[in-house]
Amino acid sequence: MSFNSFGHLFRFTTWGESHGPAIGCVVDGTPPRLKLAEPDIQHWLDRRRPGQSRFTTQRRESDRVKILSGVFEGLTTGTPISLLIENEDQRSKDYSEIKDRFRPGHADYTYWAKYGIRDYRGGGRSSARETASRVAAGAIARLVLAKLIEPAPVIRGALIQVGPLAIDRTRWDWQAVEQNPFWSPDPTRVADWESHLDQMRKSGSSAGAVIEVVASGLPAGLGAPIYGKLDADLAAAMMSINAVKGVEIGAGFAAASLSGEANADEMRMRDGKVAFLSNQAGGILGGISTGQDIVVRFAVKPTSSITTPRRTVTATGEEVEIATKGRHDPCVGIRAVPVGEAMLAIVLADHLLRHRAQCG
Amino acid sequence: MSFNSFGHLFRFTTWGESHGPAIGCVVDGTPPRLKLAEPDIQHWLDRRRPGQSRFTTQRRESDRVKILSGVFEGLTTGTPISLLIENEDQRSKDYSEIKDRFRPGHADYTYWAKYGIRDYRGGGRSSARETASRVAAGAIARLVLAKLIEPAPVIRGALIQVGPLAIDRTRWDWQAVEQNPFWSPDPTRVADWESHLDQMRKSGSSAGAVIEVVASGLPAGLGAPIYGKLDADLAAAMMSINAVKGVEIGAGFAAASLSGEANADEMRMRDGKVAFLSNQAGGILGGISTGQDIVVRFAVKPTSSITTPRRTVTATGEEVEIATKGRHDPCVGIRAVPVGEAMLAIVLADHLLRHRAQCG
Amino acid sequence: MSFNSFGHLFRFTTWGESHGPAIGCVVDGTPPRLKLAEPDIQHWLDRRRPGQSRFTTQRRESDRVKILSGVFEGLTTGTPISLLIENEDQRSKDYSEIKDRFRPGHADYTYWAKYGIRDYRGGGRSSARETASRVAAGAIARLVLAKLIEPAPVIRGALIQVGPLAIDRTRWDWQAVEQNPFWSPDPTRVADWESHLDQMRKSGSSAGAVIEVVASGLPAGLGAPIYGKLDADLAAAMMSINAVKGVEIGAGFAAASLSGEANADEMRMRDGKVAFLSNQAGGILGGISTGQDIVVRFAVKPTSSITTPRRTVTATGEEVEIATKGRHDPCVGIRAVPVGEAMLAIVLADHLLRHRAQCG
Amino acid sequence: MSFNSFGHLFRFTTWGESHGPAIGCVVDGTPPRLKLAEPDIQHWLDRRRPGQSRFTTQRRESDRVKILSGVFEGLTTGTPISLLIENEDQRSKDYSEIKDRFRPGHADYTYWAKYGIRDYRGGGRSSARETASRVAAGAIARLVLAKLIEPAPVIRGALIQVGPLAIDRTRWDWQAVEQNPFWSPDPTRVADWESHLDQMRKSGSSAGAVIEVVASGLPAGLGAPIYGKLDADLAAAMMSINAVKGVEIGAGFAAASLSGEANADEMRMRDGKVAFLSNQAGGILGGISTGQDIVVRFAVKPTSSITTPRRTVTATGEEVEIATKGRHDPCVGIRAVPVGEAMLAIVLADHLLRHRAQCG
Repeated sequence: MSFNSFGHLFRFTTWGESHGPAIGCVVDGTPPRLKLAEPDIQHWLDRRRPGQSRFTTQRRESDRVKILSGVFEGLTTGTPISLLIENEDQRSKDYSEIKDRFRPGHADYTYWAKYGIRDYRGGGRSSARETASRVAAGAIARLVLAKLIEPAPVIRGALIQVGPLAIDRTRWDWQAVEQNPFWSPDPTRVADWESHLDQMRKSGSSAGAVIEVVASGLPAGLGAPIYGKLDADLAAAMMSINAVKGVEIGAGFAAASLSGEANADEMRMRDGKVAFLSNQAGGILGGISTGQDIVVRFAVKPTSSITTPRRTVTATGEEVEIATKGRHDPCVGIRAVPVGEAMLAIVLADHLLRHRAQCG
Repeated sequence: MSFNSFGHLFRFTTWGESHGPAIGCVVDGTPPRLKLAEPDIQHWLDRRRPGQSRFTTQRRESDRVKILSGVFEGLTTGTPISLLIENEDQRSKDYSEIKDRFRPGHADYTYWAKYGIRDYRGGGRSSARETASRVAAGAIARLVLAKLIEPAPVIRGALIQVGPLAIDRTRWDWQAVEQNPFWSPDPTRVADWESHLDQMRKSGSSAGAVIEVVASGLPAGLGAPIYGKLDADLAAAMMSINAVKGVEIGAGFAAASLSGEANADEMRMRDGKVAFLSNQAGGILGGISTGQDIVVRFAVKPTSSITTPRRTVTATGEEVEIATKGRHDPCVGIRAVPVGEAMLAIVLADHLLRHRAQCG
Repeated sequence: MSFNSFGHLFRFTTWGESHGPAIGCVVDGTPPRLKLAEPDIQHWLDRRRPGQSRFTTQRRESDRVKILSGVFEGLTTGTPISLLIENEDQRSKDYSEIKDRFRPGHADYTYWAKYGIRDYRGGGRSSARETASRVAAGAIARLVLAKLIEPAPVIRGALIQVGPLAIDRTRWDWQAVEQNPFWSPDPTRVADWESHLDQMRKSGSSAGAVIEVVASGLPAGLGAPIYGKLDADLAAAMMSINAVKGVEIGAGFAAASLSGEANADEMRMRDGKVAFLSNQAGGILGGISTGQDIVVRFAVKPTSSITTPRRTVTATGEEVEIATKGRHDPCVGIRAVPVGEAMLAIVLADHLLRHRAQCG
Repeated sequence: MSFNSFGHLFRFTTWGESHGPAIGCVVDGTPPRLKLAEPDIQHWLDRRRPGQSRFTTQRRESDRVKILSGVFEGLTTGTPISLLIENEDQRSKDYSEIKDRFRPGHADYTYWAKYGIRDYRGGGRSSARETASRVAAGAIARLVLAKLIEPAPVIRGALIQVGPLAIDRTRWDWQAVEQNPFWSPDPTRVADWESHLDQMRKSGSSAGAVIEVVASGLPAGLGAPIYGKLDADLAAAMMSINAVKGVEIGAGFAAASLSGEANADEMRMRDGKVAFLSNQAGGILGGISTGQDIVVRFAVKPTSSITTPRRTVTATGEEVEIATKGRHDPCVGIRAVPVGEAMLAIVLADHLLRHRAQCG
């Protein structure tokens, strides 16, 4: 049991704080003889990297990943892969004022209540900077899936709501996702989101978001009853991402309002294979994949670091106000898209190995 | 790693199928010298027991629990507690017709795709009957919490939506919950739900639901970054319950639409203690409890066993129709209330022991 | 994490006390569609059953195993297999006198020191009766190995020392093992052991033993560096058996006295396959199987229940003497043979699944 | 589950190969607010460092440890502690000749059989260099024990046999251990060992060893039945160390030859506390500590890297000979002393936290 590890057979352990010398992770359980080099990981890290538009934090981090072990002559050896990313633009001075104050909405108070000590520099361990390690591990998970499933599954994500502004799902276009700084699948929403976020920032506020991640091309049979359900692990995976407050699969909360007939996806044969006529289930029944797209959505709360002063207290019990300066994402949900994809890939790689162990 | 175990230090393993001789669980990690006898568990099992109103399955099960180990002279010994519940009213004949057909919305197809074999009697392992074991384990978890936290925390749940009909939250009355067959905290909703469910059943359909479970009186500090977050474990716990498709904490999905100011709960001192002025966070920040109420909601899809014929296929690839006879809950969400409470208690007991291990 | 579970992918959890209503275990992770019925397990339990010669306890237990779940129409379903063995001949009265006294060499004092409570009836949870569950789980592990490896590996054990009397290894005859009540591979030792044990019993004493268990026919490649080493798991498996005080692999402690040349098993090709010219390694190098016989030995201390009075103390600090009456094995090592075999099979089945997960 | 992690609540994960850029580990579960700086770890690493006498490898490694996370302002924060040790003196060219040959006694063949690939440089992952990470983690474990137990327990080890030459236990002197390059507690043995090892080296051979590690000052009650037994975890811990072939607790294998009376340690009261009159049990009964010294011994086989040519095969099935050049310990058992101490400290720290979780 480790609080900082995730997964069972494909398993990674992360470490590091926002303003320490580096962050990183150790990925264990990777099958041997996968082709792996730093660019395979860097590609995905670059998508999450801060400072790529005015809607993400201006912190400058090149997020260069180094592989320290587990790869020999370009192939994984089956031994643990240690990945390291140095912190470059730390500016610890930005955080001195929050040393004694608990920022509302942040983990400052709870870390202090739990441990009696907290690394206050940029949130320390609770910083979203930790998610870079997830993206790095996710890159390896993608290689595992691509190696063991033919053709390779596709795992991708999109932002489907910023603040109260949801996309029009009928306009969904996966190609659009790569063409705007929000990963929006509905290009008509981009301008609205821009103005909404500009307005939020000007007013010293911030916005939440909803992300949808989808895996296509997975076989039926992944996941296991009862406490190894694929959806249970996906729920934990997404809820463990910073600022996430809700997770749903397929129809999700809307399923509560459906009739029994509308909800239960009917089946027919297509080309000799079982085909479902709808996907309210989001690709999972009884905790096991159906072979349809696996569809997961999660909600991210508005960034808690805002410049509008908020009431709070200090560690010594003084009542004070705080306005969080520093460089922050006005909507952390944007950069949560590659993180959600990574966690989806990781859960699937883990379950693929678990399935192979038990069922061959 | 076990697919059928949940929790780390307070850990239970369940076994058994709907129509086998018995179901049960083994609870490990319980602190020694807790007062425990069968009625302490039976009390909670009785709340989940089927057949108590016309809105739950008419299957007759007395659900008598037997303690087979781990208790000596009325006290827990610290060794594993084995609990057994015999299946009484099995009527396997009801299920013969679904032997070769995959019921839409059920786990029939996925179990078959995964294992190449399935116990088709009443859903076998995928039956909601398994949740009796969770309620039994939850009863012990409640004792752990009551022993280690003074005064004892209160863990309770309510049904807040049936089909599309949500309660009026301003009418929330915990006392009402125990006075209607739906565990509704809003007594004015009861009549609507009755007529909705009667109508669903008459039309051969079924209804979904939303459940809210709340823990009051927990200290700040439970839960642990990053992959041992309290909310991540709660998400897995609730998503592992049969038919659940979504989980949220505090404001949940609605947090995405809030402004940064509205979302971040401000703090003041009250009687020398930190007090929050709101609870959008649902009692959890950075994966660690704040000391406020822990608020979890989850959505349950409509019962998949419906009498309206639905299109499906057989294991040999025939296209057929199926109408599920037998005795089924028109809304499985009702009986999910005590199950959700149990899972909440279990996660908290586990985290309390984990916290005690690391932080004393 | 569970204190009462063993294994990772092939994993079992045991429960129950010597004098409770029953003991049992839950076996999780078994591949689906293995042929399994109660006689497959009973066969192995019968070998461990007490009362079969005058050299084992005269407690009468039929040790009838019942399968409560996980098997459908004669095949495993991939879901947890719950096994139950009722306690029949409990005679709790035999133990009333030890209620307040700590028996030297037993776990009485340590359980009390740890938990502040102990089930004093027959050792409660610390009784070797728990090993019946291991043998039952081991029977299923054997089926896993036989299903996945062709031809089926052979797992067997022998008693190679009773008290100070070791066998002559040059006389090793596996067929002899089944033909004497000691599982001795050296038939010339049987008479000596009989008279030694008769003498020990007459004098109110008891004897220790050394057991050797061997697995033949396993492929190279099982086990994993660094903390999943096959020999590390075997060491834990054997040391977890009641009364075991030492474990060794291959040459074991004697390896310390060998020269480097004598110790390192040389290799040649035989029929196109790698062949080792000796087996000092006991079939394991770097924690991974070599394909040779896996050879494990463990030492069992003399039965602590002896009729010679011994000095001890009570829970309230009185200095007293105790002579343990009741029905006890004069040499618990004899019945440890099938238990050691079972643990060997379990570790191998677990590692086989772990290997299949990572390496296919 | 991770093959490269050890421990449950005090848990560390190691990574790295002999000739990669670095090795290291992540230590999770450490209680917060322990004073920790690099010298606290370096002190113990220096004891294991190679090149300190002519009886250990001449590889030059300063083994400087860097703390990359989990410590803030000199105190542990309760978050994962990442430790990194750079490899300096790698000389990969030394190993080119073994690229295609399996060194007898080494893990070369088994890694290749398992993974189909191996990092042949210096043994790669199977190199004893990995044990530096254990010593580093062990240093933190010692701090955990010292913080939670008053007065701090003492954990120390000694070499008690080199080749066939055992110490005279009646001469045991802990102070002598620090005064010779063998950690021998019997100073009269030092000269014999020197000449034995010089002779082994000259003849192109190597020697095995036996190590004893002892923990004093631990309370009764650590460890847990049945599969969390303290001795079972110690057996796994020691057997996981490179080249170890046997582990025993207390009287160990010799217990098999003892009479029941001689083996069962009697009890009396001393100063109001339970006192044992002997310690055949090695401080553990029923898997739980008695409060006496915990005594563990393990056997290390002779170094497999020897200059005497040995018969072996290549990956392509050629029969060849190999003589291992390079810089090697003539007796790896010497440097195993600090490694054994570290593993003992780690197991105890883990069990202390586990005990605190369940029993307070």
